[in-house]
Amino acid sequence: MIEHTVTVRVRYGETDQMGVVYHPNYLLYFETGRTELMRAAGVTYSEMEKSGIFLVVTETACRYRAAAKYDQELRIVTKIDAVGKATIRFSYRVLGPDGTLLAEGHTELASVDGSKNPVRLPRGISDLLSKS
Amino acid sequence: MIEHTVTVRVRYGETDQMGVVYHPNYLLYFETGRTELMRAAGVTYSEMEKSGIFLVVTETACRYRAAAKYDQELRIVTKIDAVGKATIRFSYRVLGPDGTLLAEGHTELASVDGSKNPVRLPRGISDLLSKS
Amino acid sequence: MIEHTVTVRVRYGETDQMGVVYHPNYLLYFETGRTELMRAAGVTYSEMEKSGIFLVVTETACRYRAAAKYDQELRIVTKIDAVGKATIRFSYRVLGPDGTLLAEGHTELASVDGSKNPVRLPRGISDLLSKS
Amino acid sequence: MIEHTVTVRVRYGETDQMGVVYHPNYLLYFETGRTELMRAAGVTYSEMEKSGIFLVVTETACRYRAAAKYDQELRIVTKIDAVGKATIRFSYRVLGPDGTLLAEGHTELASVDGSKNPVRLPRGISDLLSKS
Repeated sequence: MIEHTVTVRVRYGETDQMGVVYHPNYLLYFETGRTELMRAAGVTYSEMEKSGIFLVVTETACRYRAAAKYDQELRIVTKIDAVGKATIRFSYRVLGPDGTLLAEGHTELASVDGSKNPVRLPRGISDLLSKS
Repeated sequence: MIEHTVTVRVRYGETDQMGVVYHPNYLLYFETGRTELMRAAGVTYSEMEKSGIFLVVTETACRYRAAAKYDQELRIVTKIDAVGKATIRFSYRVLGPDGTLLAEGHTELASVDGSKNPVRLPRGISDLLSKS
Repeated sequence: MIEHTVTVRVRYGETDQMGVVYHPNYLLYFETGRTELMRAAGVTYSEMEKSGIFLVVTETACRYRAAAKYDQELRIVTKIDAVGKATIRFSYRVLGPDGTLLAEGHTELASVDGSKNPVRLPRGISDLLSKS
Repeated sequence: MIEHTVTVRVRYGETDQMGVVYHPNYLLYFETGRTELMRAAGVTYSEMEKSGIFLVVTETACRYRAAAKYDQELRIVTKIDAVGKATIRFSYRVLGPDGTLLAEGHTELASVDGSKNPVRLPRGISDLLSKS
């Protein structure tokens, strides 16, 4: 299983008064992680939505190990854990500038059509597991 | 011109590492202010969207006077400055728990249909100026 | 175990282009849930921070069952699952206007001092488990 | 007056149910614009804060011309309008992928110390006007 890495720089507004990244914002980094993994593998999620298929998050979890700070460049390391007919599961590690593990988590998504009915994942996505 | 007041409590995630509310979040409070003014005057914006008319923000501005802090109950005082055929302008003052002026600003909105073409403001809104 | 319920109204900015609440925002609702449970039980978290004790989130998870929509009044039902010497675990259910379960999850927090070293939970918090 | 350009890609969570970028989020793009202009000119804002000088936003305004959409790469073009002893004013244009002007605005900031008292802008910043 190959991993995909993308870098995000912590924005000021992503911090809170504890002086660190506010915990829900890691889910935004996860989203960037999976979107860029898909793009790198040839699947542009915005195009997928235009074609009428949506990935909705059905479950997410995150363990926080150490704090990320303003202006740090974080590495989001994403891999695909499993792909079903209409579901996909990604896992993530967020690393600080020195390689420290800051957080890790996963997200399960379901593919649905515009009426929120389950539909098969597009071929490109199903193939990601082997590619990524 | 009568004003409408609504209270919002500052959430943890709305602060930043300076220990105060991150400045763009006042625009969220403004939105709550105008939405609740409209509701109090009998116009539910969510219903308006369902009927196919959208209010899009065309301009906004804010002057910051003093910092709002976590868990404070802020008063958002909203009034309507002007109503045109397809535009409306709200102004806002954000007051701290002791009545201090923390911020003031305004927002201009245009009414459009689902294709983003200008449409007349619904009657209920046009009437707000006299009512509010 | 008694539960605490607080209502939040979905803000426009909390939606995304799928027309529903963007999934990380449920963690903000969870935060409101635990903060208000604590306040109802006599512990004001903002005062706790002023006294030098911080609750940092060490783990969170959420399962999404159905979509929350703009302007809906959601009920956040919070309870305390467990209290340790320096940790506390809350669980949450988010209910829609008609009582439908929209999401459920939990959060684990650790109490630390200003240097991020673990410290005993303040007495008021330790007592919450029996009270709440 | 030279301008600085930085690219940001619109995140999913930055959209709202109108299918476009939620208007307060342009202020986040402005922040990225001025932070990167400063960094390009040799002033790292995060270092400035560590040295005890903070830039607080005292005024901001934005005019919205056309909608930015999910996954678009936006260009944030930033320049410095004026630098005073303890104040600085930036202006911004946000351009879509095809160069269309989507939004324009400005921000005024004041330099303060940790007690929120005005202090002289650090030399590096005062020099930006001529450099940028």
